[in-house]
Amino acid sequence: MIQLSKLRHTDSPNFFLMAGPCAIEGRDMALQIAERIVTITDKLRIPYIFKGSYRKANRTKANSFTGIGDELALSILNEVGTTFNIPTVTDIHESDEAAMAAEAVDVLQIPAFLCRQTELLEAAARTGKAVNIKKGQFLSGESMHFAAEKVHAINPEATVILTDRGNSFGYGDLVVDYRNIPAMQSFGVPVVMDCTHSLQQPNQSSGVTGGKPALIATIAKAAIAVGADGLFIETHPDPSCAKSDGANMLPLDQLEGLLERLVRVREAIL
Amino acid sequence: MIQLSKLRHTDSPNFFLMAGPCAIEGRDMALQIAERIVTITDKLRIPYIFKGSYRKANRTKANSFTGIGDELALSILNEVGTTFNIPTVTDIHESDEAAMAAEAVDVLQIPAFLCRQTELLEAAARTGKAVNIKKGQFLSGESMHFAAEKVHAINPEATVILTDRGNSFGYGDLVVDYRNIPAMQSFGVPVVMDCTHSLQQPNQSSGVTGGKPALIATIAKAAIAVGADGLFIETHPDPSCAKSDGANMLPLDQLEGLLERLVRVREAIL
Amino acid sequence: MIQLSKLRHTDSPNFFLMAGPCAIEGRDMALQIAERIVTITDKLRIPYIFKGSYRKANRTKANSFTGIGDELALSILNEVGTTFNIPTVTDIHESDEAAMAAEAVDVLQIPAFLCRQTELLEAAARTGKAVNIKKGQFLSGESMHFAAEKVHAINPEATVILTDRGNSFGYGDLVVDYRNIPAMQSFGVPVVMDCTHSLQQPNQSSGVTGGKPALIATIAKAAIAVGADGLFIETHPDPSCAKSDGANMLPLDQLEGLLERLVRVREAIL
Amino acid sequence: MIQLSKLRHTDSPNFFLMAGPCAIEGRDMALQIAERIVTITDKLRIPYIFKGSYRKANRTKANSFTGIGDELALSILNEVGTTFNIPTVTDIHESDEAAMAAEAVDVLQIPAFLCRQTELLEAAARTGKAVNIKKGQFLSGESMHFAAEKVHAINPEATVILTDRGNSFGYGDLVVDYRNIPAMQSFGVPVVMDCTHSLQQPNQSSGVTGGKPALIATIAKAAIAVGADGLFIETHPDPSCAKSDGANMLPLDQLEGLLERLVRVREAIL
Repeated sequence: MIQLSKLRHTDSPNFFLMAGPCAIEGRDMALQIAERIVTITDKLRIPYIFKGSYRKANRTKANSFTGIGDELALSILNEVGTTFNIPTVTDIHESDEAAMAAEAVDVLQIPAFLCRQTELLEAAARTGKAVNIKKGQFLSGESMHFAAEKVHAINPEATVILTDRGNSFGYGDLVVDYRNIPAMQSFGVPVVMDCTHSLQQPNQSSGVTGGKPALIATIAKAAIAVGADGLFIETHPDPSCAKSDGANMLPLDQLEGLLERLVRVREAIL
Repeated sequence: MIQLSKLRHTDSPNFFLMAGPCAIEGRDMALQIAERIVTITDKLRIPYIFKGSYRKANRTKANSFTGIGDELALSILNEVGTTFNIPTVTDIHESDEAAMAAEAVDVLQIPAFLCRQTELLEAAARTGKAVNIKKGQFLSGESMHFAAEKVHAINPEATVILTDRGNSFGYGDLVVDYRNIPAMQSFGVPVVMDCTHSLQQPNQSSGVTGGKPALIATIAKAAIAVGADGLFIETHPDPSCAKSDGANMLPLDQLEGLLERLVRVREAIL
Repeated sequence: MIQLSKLRHTDSPNFFLMAGPCAIEGRDMALQIAERIVTITDKLRIPYIFKGSYRKANRTKANSFTGIGDELALSILNEVGTTFNIPTVTDIHESDEAAMAAEAVDVLQIPAFLCRQTELLEAAARTGKAVNIKKGQFLSGESMHFAAEKVHAINPEATVILTDRGNSFGYGDLVVDYRNIPAMQSFGVPVVMDCTHSLQQPNQSSGVTGGKPALIATIAKAAIAVGADGLFIETHPDPSCAKSDGANMLPLDQLEGLLERLVRVREAIL
Repeated sequence: MIQLSKLRHTDSPNFFLMAGPCAIEGRDMALQIAERIVTITDKLRIPYIFKGSYRKANRTKANSFTGIGDELALSILNEVGTTFNIPTVTDIHESDEAAMAAEAVDVLQIPAFLCRQTELLEAAARTGKAVNIKKGQFLSGESMHFAAEKVHAINPEATVILTDRGNSFGYGDLVVDYRNIPAMQSFGVPVVMDCTHSLQQPNQSSGVTGGKPALIATIAKAAIAVGADGLFIETHPDPSCAKSDGANMLPLDQLEGLLERLVRVREAIL
């Protein structure tokens, strides 16, 4: 199990969960989502890390929603962590964001497109925070060894998490290769399946990425069955109103039922 | 559950199993493998269909092993079915093989490369036997609807099974897309995961297809977790001595342990 | 240059051309198309082989057009060859078609899906005719060595042609890898680019394969520039009325202009 | 033709060339390479832009060569531009590099992995320099429209160049899809083929990217034949001694012969 301050239920045999809205859209929605997920994960004894992006830096189109302001969004992330006494995670895109974000959250996440950017990984490592690196859609699980190494070269004690979000499959689709879970676990780090972005169908001519949210349970069950250490799920009280990535977020009221089913699969493989 | 004469344990909530050696190499080995698997599947209450190819028609190289003779191999398949009172399956490659093979086995299998060959599908359909169609490595699950339809157009009562064996992923690799399991189940047919051929690494310059048999359990657990109706596993007492596809066959003495773990995953999702 | 009886302009430095309608829809259309292409290729000094399928055996859907009858279609192919004194090519799908088709045409073509079927390749080889093998959408150029070898093992004198028709790229698309042209030429055989089927966009949910015919010239120019020995182009006086593959056939009245431009590219690389 | 100050031969019907070493390894080698290429391109009337990276920010492994120091490398790029009166191009990886690099070069290049990073594109746009955006290995040509738009939204007058460097094809290979050249030209911008990185074979377990430099001419000829506006070629007097990407650089003494052949292909398509 990963060691993170404020992470609960670390004596539970369960997978851990990184979940929350795609973007921090406001204080109330963040606190409301966190409260609901804390209640569910306390009940199911699932170690939980609240996830929210404070800035969306790589949207397809220039005029997409990019955030409510860095300072405000980071302060909300901080408040969520303090209020519920849980760890939080957010993604950074350039090295000079690392120190700033590290003041607000417990885990810095490196986006898949950026997982080879040495300076970004090193800046994250220098904060002393845990680093969650998403596997590039163009990389094998094996080659993520080098990304983890870049962090450990700066901070040998760093907690590194590797997250799979699928591979490019033609121009308009992604496919998850479950062989990558044991491949990345062989480096001695926890491996997470991102059940949200694995279902993206990118490159739509409209510039709005599509998806197939009905398959979230399919992606998640397979991941747990093959031994994934954690899951990453974006969720929203009303995905159709979300300001980004609505196409693949899980409606918040479906989360508990999904997690219950996944806990049973987890028990079956232990 | 599929209905096949001689299929046992059809009242069990378990997945069914198509398993046996890649090729029928001789009478003794076929009977010995069948006996062992019957014992295991009776114990675990898994409906079991014995699998063996009587002819290998699409080996990479011309000088590969292609079989011990059609008549002999088919008579062995027939003997296996009679001796243990279990259904059997074998693959056919041209339409004129359908009638001949149908006299010996209960299920005719259409290789993935040939899943669009209308005449072959129709010839199989005309025998009245069940037809197991492997999904082409170049086809979406959705498009297998048309393959199933070609069989049902000839014989509306035909039992059709669809089997996924992975998708081409570059030249030297295959990747399993688990979204195809629910996609093909939506046609109202049972869907099987081929845990053996999904792990092939084709196009080796040597003309000998490689593989990663250590991942058989990974492929199988994910399939059961997402609700696959059946599994296809090639197994051999000594894969290193097998006359074809040794690179990916499961050692027979590992089968029971694997199935026990899979039965637990199955129970967790029901 | 390949040696085929009746092949003209073999002293020309040009690429050769396999062209005609997708399917033989009738006697008049076949003769009319052949006459037009013979006139153009005589003028441009392009060695020409008339192409037409006598049977469509692997259509996506069972109720697609499959032909006007084998005997009639083959007799029309024979008449085209005799009338214009040109070689002809048609595709076969099962081994028992080889001898029959060989009576009518000069080149037997093996479809891409079937390029690993040993018996089919051997049956084609035994006719003594030239054999044009399409590269499977799932195979590297390098691995086509084994397909050519299967023919040469039966008939060491056989003229073997290898044709590239693109690689699977996700579920709904194909991509041509031009590295395969020199890779396959390294076996000492002529290599052809299929400019028609390389543009297919398969797996449409409708069961009707789409395409992008505006890109035929793009595919062809690149092939000639990298040194392809021949081109394969399906053409029809009115593709929108064609009974199969209309989505990618070149309108016949555009063929001359395209070939003129390609001859100039050919001259530039010699 | 793109308009860039110091770009010569813009009245020539030729493609333009971005070429130079992968990384600026030192002053002498940079000047020596530039001099040789200027001589060749003046003779062949090819508009020429000198290319060199001042920092390698996304090497596979942490301990790879990353540069001789930003200030020194940029001053050498500046000196090359001044000495030979030619435009220069270098790549940037984070927004705060844009202004600094813009003082030394005429074109800012956005790496393929980073082509969706809105802030980076905007920072490049704000310098007023031309921006060369490499197409992500995971993106269709069509979707690069949004990348170009992000630059033009900041600076409507910006010269934008789009460069194709191939698509992910499985884990260990890239394939060039030549359909992307006309697709990207349809946005009204010049399109370049990167003949060096298109041949990479990434994800080697060693962490050292491989390649097939013998195919540089194949990639380049196809690109010119389909109408590419420019070529990008990394070249080095002795690739085996280069400090990065040696696996795919063209030996400098082969450049003139290659360009002569390409000029002939260009003439054939005009």
